[in-house]
Amino acid sequence: MFSVTVRNHMMVAHSLRGEVFGPAQRLHGATYVVDATFRRGDLDPDGVVVDIGRATEALRAVLADLNYRNLDEEPALAGMNTSTEALARVIADRLAESVQGGVLGDSARELDSLSVTLHESHVASASYERAL
Amino acid sequence: MFSVTVRNHMMVAHSLRGEVFGPAQRLHGATYVVDATFRRGDLDPDGVVVDIGRATEALRAVLADLNYRNLDEEPALAGMNTSTEALARVIADRLAESVQGGVLGDSARELDSLSVTLHESHVASASYERAL
Amino acid sequence: MFSVTVRNHMMVAHSLRGEVFGPAQRLHGATYVVDATFRRGDLDPDGVVVDIGRATEALRAVLADLNYRNLDEEPALAGMNTSTEALARVIADRLAESVQGGVLGDSARELDSLSVTLHESHVASASYERAL
Amino acid sequence: MFSVTVRNHMMVAHSLRGEVFGPAQRLHGATYVVDATFRRGDLDPDGVVVDIGRATEALRAVLADLNYRNLDEEPALAGMNTSTEALARVIADRLAESVQGGVLGDSARELDSLSVTLHESHVASASYERAL
Amino acid sequence: MFSVTVRNHMMVAHSLRGEVFGPAQRLHGATYVVDATFRRGDLDPDGVVVDIGRATEALRAVLADLNYRNLDEEPALAGMNTSTEALARVIADRLAESVQGGVLGDSARELDSLSVTLHESHVASASYERAL
Amino acid sequence: MFSVTVRNHMMVAHSLRGEVFGPAQRLHGATYVVDATFRRGDLDPDGVVVDIGRATEALRAVLADLNYRNLDEEPALAGMNTSTEALARVIADRLAESVQGGVLGDSARELDSLSVTLHESHVASASYERAL
Repeated sequence: MFSVTVRNHMMVAHSLRGEVFGPAQRLHGATYVVDATFRRGDLDPDGVVVDIGRATEALRAVLADLNYRNLDEEPALAGMNTSTEALARVIADRLAESVQGGVLGDSARELDSLSVTLHESHVASASYERAL
Repeated sequence: MFSVTVRNHMMVAHSLRGEVFGPAQRLHGATYVVDATFRRGDLDPDGVVVDIGRATEALRAVLADLNYRNLDEEPALAGMNTSTEALARVIADRLAESVQGGVLGDSARELDSLSVTLHESHVASASYERAL
Repeated sequence: MFSVTVRNHMMVAHSLRGEVFGPAQRLHGATYVVDATFRRGDLDPDGVVVDIGRATEALRAVLADLNYRNLDEEPALAGMNTSTEALARVIADRLAESVQGGVLGDSARELDSLSVTLHESHVASASYERAL
Repeated sequence: MFSVTVRNHMMVAHSLRGEVFGPAQRLHGATYVVDATFRRGDLDPDGVVVDIGRATEALRAVLADLNYRNLDEEPALAGMNTSTEALARVIADRLAESVQGGVLGDSARELDSLSVTLHESHVASASYERAL
Repeated sequence: MFSVTVRNHMMVAHSLRGEVFGPAQRLHGATYVVDATFRRGDLDPDGVVVDIGRATEALRAVLADLNYRNLDEEPALAGMNTSTEALARVIADRLAESVQGGVLGDSARELDSLSVTLHESHVASASYERAL
Repeated sequence: MFSVTVRNHMMVAHSLRGEVFGPAQRLHGATYVVDATFRRGDLDPDGVVVDIGRATEALRAVLADLNYRNLDEEPALAGMNTSTEALARVIADRLAESVQGGVLGDSARELDSLSVTLHESHVASASYERAL
């Protein structure tokens, strides 16, 4: 099994609902350093999982729709607790749409799975993995 | 599949038994930077794998019982070669007990698995993964 | 010259005023991974610059007053553009007060200088250095 | 499941063939920071997955055959697009030969699998995982 | 004293002349992860050392002229041993020209100094610092 | 001003004397990831501060005398509190002797200064800087 991982980041405000979150129920924020990993059993005709340049651009485009925003006011996230793990799924699902829409090239449609990890600090991160 | 990872560290003395370890048979020591990863198929009602604050506290508590000690004199580790991978299992098993004891909340009892990685330097680490 | 550095982090919301900031004029947020460095010409009678445990606690206390907050609504920061470099100065000045107030012990009053670096992502940081 | 990971690096020149690579079709180069991970279900009689010292030496030896070279002129890689993921497989396969040849000791022949990750920068990496 | 640091990278081929370099006399390559640090005594009217976005773009532009190239064939570097430290100076000098040319805005002309660090691997780096 | 930094590590046991150290008064241990930085105003005739390979070897040799040991029993450190900052000075002084003894080549005798940083964990480090 092969994989390729690319990294970028986004800087957002948000708050979390639920007593368990303590002070994180207040409006605060985070830098999420985001790693997106693409997996497949064999390399494509160019000898890659996916072109790293294209993967980088696809991740950048997905993050651009969330970056520099207050997630509490994002219509697409209404009613959702924007925990680190929930955001990992949002980003993974949007990347999956990019892949299926051909943004990473035709051969990328043969990718098996992708995972997304959000590092919220030097001591905490969360991930979501899904099939493609 | 979702996961959450939290990081902490411990600083211990120990020695290893066996010719293969060469100079590490002498009493020496290590800082282990420890990553604990918790996994489950679905998020809990709060929208998380496990609360990052609680997971951080659970890991801190497990490490506190080993931190600033000479592992060669720890009764609980008697007769064990305290290699990095063996220590990863000790910590994972103790964290599993914490989870099952409710330390991370009721919904954490539905976690599927956890893994523990110990970084012994910038160039070497070891991990242990187990079901919950 | 000796120095000791300790690391912690805070997660805040804020916005920046000024056209140069482009999309960062919107309410967004950041995780700041904060390094505080203490410097002196000679070690104290215990053989340290400052006790790492005490320095860690002093930094934690300073960050606790800003953590999980919307900096746009912090009275103490009113009228200030909370850029990464301006926040580095706020934190350095508050740490300097801690040092001078004896929070790090008597011998810490002989520290020469301190600097504070805020990492706002894996690709950008800002620092402020001052005398003590 | 247990694992051990060791890290080293190599510095090579190469070029990539295929329009998708854009400017990377020119002769350029890379530092690959290489992580090799060895996995097995149980520890060996010494209480380890594999001795970290031996694993480090085995990885060093494999990288030495590629280090400080222009991969476009390496006979062993002739006709291959030396993408990061393809190089991960080359290194994993050569490490697998080392394991099977006894370089990591007899008990290492019971390893289940290994994976190799090449970090080509702070924002991109690729991996290959295979059975042993 | 305030500073701001931004990071980017370039991937180049080159060789070094001189017996001291041993195998690095052969054509090989490197990923240089580049940190550029800008310093000044006071913040500008916007409350920053330099806008991080503009600094990032200025560094990207300087690296673009070297990226994905064989430095042995770069006319601008002819006759120079392109050691990591020598390249740090080349990049610092080109960034200084950008600053003086107004690329980072008018107030950036008041910067005191800049330094450039090139990380050639996880275990080696080189820096050059100069006045502005 | 130019500089070159190389990294290695050592794994030692020790204890600290003094109430301020709390639990670190017990025998415990640490991995110190060590960065040694060499500085000079101009490059040598080969175009470097010091050859990175030689600097790496000099640091390895200095650390080898401390590695895999209990520092409480090292005659050379008798009577010294082996705090992270005190160890940084020990290593810097020994590296200075190496430089002056010609281990890094003749031109390295023109180095201006060196500094040594010991990272004792992902959240704490200490440094010592001295003239040459």
